[in-house]
Amino acid sequence: MHIDAQGLEILDREECLRLLATVPLGRVVFTDKALPAIQPVIFGLDDDRIVLRTSPGAKLALATRGSVVAFEADSFDPGTRAGWSVTLIGEARPITDPAALARAARLAIDTWTPGPRDHYVEITGRIVSGRRIVGALCS
Amino acid sequence: MHIDAQGLEILDREECLRLLATVPLGRVVFTDKALPAIQPVIFGLDDDRIVLRTSPGAKLALATRGSVVAFEADSFDPGTRAGWSVTLIGEARPITDPAALARAARLAIDTWTPGPRDHYVEITGRIVSGRRIVGALCS
Repeated sequence: MHIDAQGLEILDREECLRLLATVPLGRVVFTDKALPAIQPVIFGLDDDRIVLRTSPGAKLALATRGSVVAFEADSFDPGTRAGWSVTLIGEARPITDPAALARAARLAIDTWTPGPRDHYVEITGRIVSGRRIVGALCS
Repeated sequence: MHIDAQGLEILDREECLRLLATVPLGRVVFTDKALPAIQPVIFGLDDDRIVLRTSPGAKLALATRGSVVAFEADSFDPGTRAGWSVTLIGEARPITDPAALARAARLAIDTWTPGPRDHYVEITGRIVSGRRIVGALCS
């Protein structure tokens, strides 16, 4: 087990992707009008690519087009103080190829809000990193 | 109730701050080596300021010094598809004034990892925004 300077377990890429597949919701980090922005999203995972389902005119779709963004998901239990966080950094691109769109649709990504969500964005995981707190560590 | 273009309830500043006080953990969004970065943190809330407890040499302390950062916290229930997200944007500054340090210490911010955590950072909430999903909205 590799531990970082903060006492957290360093997770390898394989473990990061395995953990991402266990949660439905993550957060996209991008820049909006030169300010840092973050938005929770339901996501799908296709190998090492994050797939988002949105509407073409949504801020998320517009602000992330061709941008390098971060995607984060985590799961923490305040009771045991255990948990993990995974961050993926890569370029966000709209999915336009028909075969890729069909593949994205097969992920059956849930939507929690009304309105059309027929626009898909993919984030390729160029850098994937993660940390785990093993829990029961008190100050 | 105000609803945005995505069908989400728009929360006012007062409600955002009230919700922030209900969770122990949020995420700081910043820039690290010109790449977007995000890190989960335990936090305290002092009026409309987010207070973080870290170590002086931690990446979080170094990368956020004097920077405009975002801080996000959320709570979602996949079962009911209900939840909320609040984002606060402002300048991050180390707390150095003795009276302000004593005030930060009184927040008794928990730490989940070993090692000294005697360095405090505050993020003043210049822009506070939030959204709520009322739940039970199916695609």
